[in-house]
Amino acid sequence: MIPLEEIRQISVVSPSKIVMLVIDGLGGLPDSRTGKTELETAHTPYLDQLAKEGICGLIDPVSPGITPGSGPGHLALFGYDPLKFTIGRGVLEALGIGFELQKNDIAARGNFCTVDGKGVITDRRAGRITTDKCAELCTLLSHIKLQGVESFVLPVKEHRFSLILRGKGLASEINDTDPQKIGVAPYTPKYKYIIAKHTADIVNEFIKQAKRILAGHHPANMILLRGFSKLPDVPSMSEIYKLTPAAIAGYPMYKGLAKLVGMKIYNADGGIKDELKTLKDCYAKHDFFYVHVKQTDSAGEDGDFKRKVKIIEEVDSALPQILNLKPEVIIVTGDHSTPALLKGHSWHPVPALLYSQWCRHDNVKAFSESACLSGGLGSLQSIDIMPLAMANALKLTKFGA
Amino acid sequence: MIPLEEIRQISVVSPSKIVMLVIDGLGGLPDSRTGKTELETAHTPYLDQLAKEGICGLIDPVSPGITPGSGPGHLALFGYDPLKFTIGRGVLEALGIGFELQKNDIAARGNFCTVDGKGVITDRRAGRITTDKCAELCTLLSHIKLQGVESFVLPVKEHRFSLILRGKGLASEINDTDPQKIGVAPYTPKYKYIIAKHTADIVNEFIKQAKRILAGHHPANMILLRGFSKLPDVPSMSEIYKLTPAAIAGYPMYKGLAKLVGMKIYNADGGIKDELKTLKDCYAKHDFFYVHVKQTDSAGEDGDFKRKVKIIEEVDSALPQILNLKPEVIIVTGDHSTPALLKGHSWHPVPALLYSQWCRHDNVKAFSESACLSGGLGSLQSIDIMPLAMANALKLTKFGA
Repeated sequence: MIPLEEIRQISVVSPSKIVMLVIDGLGGLPDSRTGKTELETAHTPYLDQLAKEGICGLIDPVSPGITPGSGPGHLALFGYDPLKFTIGRGVLEALGIGFELQKNDIAARGNFCTVDGKGVITDRRAGRITTDKCAELCTLLSHIKLQGVESFVLPVKEHRFSLILRGKGLASEINDTDPQKIGVAPYTPKYKYIIAKHTADIVNEFIKQAKRILAGHHPANMILLRGFSKLPDVPSMSEIYKLTPAAIAGYPMYKGLAKLVGMKIYNADGGIKDELKTLKDCYAKHDFFYVHVKQTDSAGEDGDFKRKVKIIEEVDSALPQILNLKPEVIIVTGDHSTPALLKGHSWHPVPALLYSQWCRHDNVKAFSESACLSGGLGSLQSIDIMPLAMANALKLTKFGA
Repeated sequence: MIPLEEIRQISVVSPSKIVMLVIDGLGGLPDSRTGKTELETAHTPYLDQLAKEGICGLIDPVSPGITPGSGPGHLALFGYDPLKFTIGRGVLEALGIGFELQKNDIAARGNFCTVDGKGVITDRRAGRITTDKCAELCTLLSHIKLQGVESFVLPVKEHRFSLILRGKGLASEINDTDPQKIGVAPYTPKYKYIIAKHTADIVNEFIKQAKRILAGHHPANMILLRGFSKLPDVPSMSEIYKLTPAAIAGYPMYKGLAKLVGMKIYNADGGIKDELKTLKDCYAKHDFFYVHVKQTDSAGEDGDFKRKVKIIEEVDSALPQILNLKPEVIIVTGDHSTPALLKGHSWHPVPALLYSQWCRHDNVKAFSESACLSGGLGSLQSIDIMPLAMANALKLTKFGA
């Protein structure tokens, strides 16, 4: 891993273009009957051909054994050390619903919960109220007035909501009020450092008013807050790489992550074909394109091996739309593995493919976990992918004389 | 490598169990006639089957090219950065003889040596006196009285002894008195930082009295001290991993290292079968088991290729005792290589095998250096083994949201 500051020193502007296709949760585990993973089961002639002409490997998003969330998984692919640039739960939730977070906003993840007569939590999720009910209660909480601070209360899903505070002198060093267990009262919001005392007072006031407003709304008669955070201070990709980067994605969280690193966002929520049409439309305006495919991860999370296979095949059949644009560098990989067998993100390394005129060939003839294992890129960290893409696009000069 | 603090944040308690079998000095070099290493020569049907069902790789204990001592080799396997958590020579020697070091004890490695009439060293090892003679002289030195400081002088082997100082305000920043050459007088103990001035005075007084006591005991008429050190401040495995770890070992040094990271020690000095009987007996009480096999390293150090092969075969034939317990994760590896050809520890990467329900299979069909080279774990650092073991035991939650 090379520090971003060093990359900034050696990156140069050039007309070459890089397309990074991120197939979310791409890596998998083998079905016990066939011994093949989702990617190995899928019929992927275009990806296989690209693997043959390019160079392959397996990437670790964070570190061996570590299962990454979407934030770290993506930041690493964009070349940012996920152990250094951490994204708080509150911020991620706000990004996830497409809220336009400003630089000094404080965001927290909220739960509607149930408390008994003594104020003790009896259900941390308020019986998983419907999203409609959640939206209705968020509207009620939106009327809370705070001294010198604007607040936004937005529904996420079921009992989950997002709280954003905007105002002068706010700090995010506030402990969770969510004790993460029942049988106790919610914690009072406490500041971790004195700098956050004012914010703790504001949060306290918000909770007091919320309690009053929600009193008659059993089971959602109280709130729990956690993950108080600000947008991390991240240098933009244009600063580091001298790129004019574009993101083509359908889901709010990924657009939020892309925005965080300074990409121009293009919305495309009609699946891969729609995304690749958008890519074509904006192709002249940028030199880096992050294209995000979400559905593979969702299928993996649902434990739906077959659906994940099918989506990979769809991506494969759409691949010529990228190839026809003739970008100098194409990266195909994932932000992490989501094996259908585990029904969730996992720690397994992710197949990665790099195609350019300048890559040294290996013997990989198919794009799969097992083939990538003997690929020319070897085992590397996700964070090394961007420098490799930049190098193959001839956008990096010599390091040192 | 991920910081321990991050692991602490994401580790969770679960009923799954991890067995880490450390075959000391496992890695080897090929016999020139057969082209096969010790492990490749050994008939190991059980290890080969486990390699087939699991995932393999080669691990570097410290860094490529670096030959580790037992301390760094083991600390890395337990997930502690051996470049950060260093164990002084004095401490290692004390642990090696099973001395119960306390937190602020100062330990030094001692040599009985020979000096001439002018006090110049003529033999740094006093003609390698017998261990019995060493013990006798240590008893004499045990009578030395120091102001406010308790001292322990314990025989190790031949001319080697261990000195431990216990008292208030002691510091370990003392230079060696051993010049590591003959023809000069032993150095005066000097403090590196002013904080250790009092300790340097105490050590000076100890040496003065020792010199007087030993005057008539030629060739062992003087002492040399080096490696002044304290136990490093290491967070326990139960703190970091939330495990209740057990160590099953026969040799004092390994029990000492395991104790340092907070393992419960089970003594078993009747070889691998005895150790695995102990494993069975304490299996219900713990969720992590470090089982140490010493004899492979000893055979390697002796340059005895055949004996190392035989011990590996013994370990293999005892393996069903582990398999029958059905732990969720099994790790088989070594703390470093000890090729019989080199008659000592070496820098060569060590074969590593991880078995779990959740590992992604590779094409490795035997447990050997050459087979592990193309294993699915690839080349990694020993320090990454614990996070992988934890992940495969489903004891780590997501990193970042």
